[in-house]
Amino acid sequence: MPQTLAKPRIGLLLGDPSGIGPELAAKLLQDPETLASAAVTLIGDPQIYAAGAAIAGAPPKPPPPVRVMEWRPEGAPARYPPAQVSEAAGAYALGSLEQGADLLSRGELDALVYSPLNKQAMKIAGLEDEDETHFFARLLKPSGLSSEVNIAGALWTTRVTSHVPLRAVAGLITRDRVTAAIRLLHDVLKANGLAAPRIAVAGLNPHAGEGGLLGSEEVEIIAPAVEDARATGIAASGPYPADTLFIAARRGDFDGVVTMYHDQGQIATKLMGFERGVTLIGGLPFPICTPAHGTAFDIAGKGSANPGPIREAFRIAVRLTRPMLD
Amino acid sequence: MPQTLAKPRIGLLLGDPSGIGPELAAKLLQDPETLASAAVTLIGDPQIYAAGAAIAGAPPKPPPPVRVMEWRPEGAPARYPPAQVSEAAGAYALGSLEQGADLLSRGELDALVYSPLNKQAMKIAGLEDEDETHFFARLLKPSGLSSEVNIAGALWTTRVTSHVPLRAVAGLITRDRVTAAIRLLHDVLKANGLAAPRIAVAGLNPHAGEGGLLGSEEVEIIAPAVEDARATGIAASGPYPADTLFIAARRGDFDGVVTMYHDQGQIATKLMGFERGVTLIGGLPFPICTPAHGTAFDIAGKGSANPGPIREAFRIAVRLTRPMLD
Repeated sequence: MPQTLAKPRIGLLLGDPSGIGPELAAKLLQDPETLASAAVTLIGDPQIYAAGAAIAGAPPKPPPPVRVMEWRPEGAPARYPPAQVSEAAGAYALGSLEQGADLLSRGELDALVYSPLNKQAMKIAGLEDEDETHFFARLLKPSGLSSEVNIAGALWTTRVTSHVPLRAVAGLITRDRVTAAIRLLHDVLKANGLAAPRIAVAGLNPHAGEGGLLGSEEVEIIAPAVEDARATGIAASGPYPADTLFIAARRGDFDGVVTMYHDQGQIATKLMGFERGVTLIGGLPFPICTPAHGTAFDIAGKGSANPGPIREAFRIAVRLTRPMLD
Repeated sequence: MPQTLAKPRIGLLLGDPSGIGPELAAKLLQDPETLASAAVTLIGDPQIYAAGAAIAGAPPKPPPPVRVMEWRPEGAPARYPPAQVSEAAGAYALGSLEQGADLLSRGELDALVYSPLNKQAMKIAGLEDEDETHFFARLLKPSGLSSEVNIAGALWTTRVTSHVPLRAVAGLITRDRVTAAIRLLHDVLKANGLAAPRIAVAGLNPHAGEGGLLGSEEVEIIAPAVEDARATGIAASGPYPADTLFIAARRGDFDGVVTMYHDQGQIATKLMGFERGVTLIGGLPFPICTPAHGTAFDIAGKGSANPGPIREAFRIAVRLTRPMLD
């Protein structure tokens, strides 16, 4: 008989109340597998949950095993306008993220899953960080690199630079940063259950620099960084030309890909169905996962939102907490 | 009754003799539709053609309507080693391109189609140009921008910068260059039969700069260039975030996409099947087309090479000569 382990304590946030987030949370909590896999705490406004549940055709309260931690911002409205960007909805979403981060850092949760956010609404409501990764890194103070991991099916990717102008990218590619990104991806893939994840590293330049003819970063920075990672036992390889790398990755040749800049990975993963995938904030002391898609205002309130990606986000959060329980 | 037009005079080159090029040329010339659509001149070494035809299971000489213009480099070997990079094969391929360009500039051909080349072999044999686009531009002296057009199914793409380090890209994005690339793509799509091709222009930065937060090129350079193109009646739009643009393009929202740098387009088009597509050297006074795939040394001599892409390259070359016959 396997040993009984304590179930991971997962916090669930409703996301932007004007989008499909509450509906997705309600659909997620109707899933027996989800409920069996973790001790779930729903953090947020029960009225927002009930509204989402009505859209989902579910009971107004979560099923009994789910703990509800009631929270709403001061002065919150009773209802949020559906399918609209608003300061109130942004303030709700932003405040709920802060609640979740606080519970994580106080050791009351093992991981966090949140429904889609609207960045514009959060900016109006006062978000000053570049993105959610920087937001959580500020609150949770990781010891090393923190970086978004994009998960599309079996393929996990992360990047060395993110929301910076293309003009600035080459100057930000350093041997240490590349090695740190490789290590981050290795660590999360290993936590997800792979003994020796195969990690491919993209080049920066066309044809991965063609031996130095089209740029020197591959020879001077990226190849040495791959060697550094290999020296610590990571199954890293590259740099590969970015335009053929993703064909090999789609074929299953690699478990993870480290890209050098935002669009290098996003062009490929979005074409490969990443809108049905999962985003993980990697490098933090706790797993934080969310569906890769957005608030989908075009279908908000219609009941047609697909809970597949949030279920997958939840499954990954559960799996990533395991090593902490060993 | 439609007026009878003179058939376009298309030159066909065998490409690198050590790859699948001669086999593909022989397969192409067994296709009745190809033979009916044009007056074909095969330019090259009949022995290389015969060897390719033997692999293809075709007669050793092209069918009667095809004119053969015998050519081989001085001191050429009787046979070329299959599936190998060699100086002799590179010299053959390079010399045949020069022959083709010469016939075009002397007005003896309307367009050129060539089988796959091996760039490394041509470099060993003395090619000094950055790529075939620069090679042909040097010989054929176009009046404006010359740029590679990548054709994957119904989607045509071209780029503002090509084989340069990523570090250099942002500095090369100018309003004139962007407008010239839009116009080039508009012109070839129109020549291919579209009355008002819908052309999308990619941004340079993540999220197309997010209103200037992540880079200023969209606001200062690319959007004005799109306006310049629109002012001349071109159905251009953008700049769009590169990572979602190709999802829209794959869906059929656009006929053409102008990208800012090599991998921005190549990552997407390769994932969308561009290895079965066609490369057109755009902006020259004559259409020059080739299959997008390479010499495929792994299957050279086996008879299994797919002639679909070279047939499509031929069809496009024929269509693009039409406006010159009007």
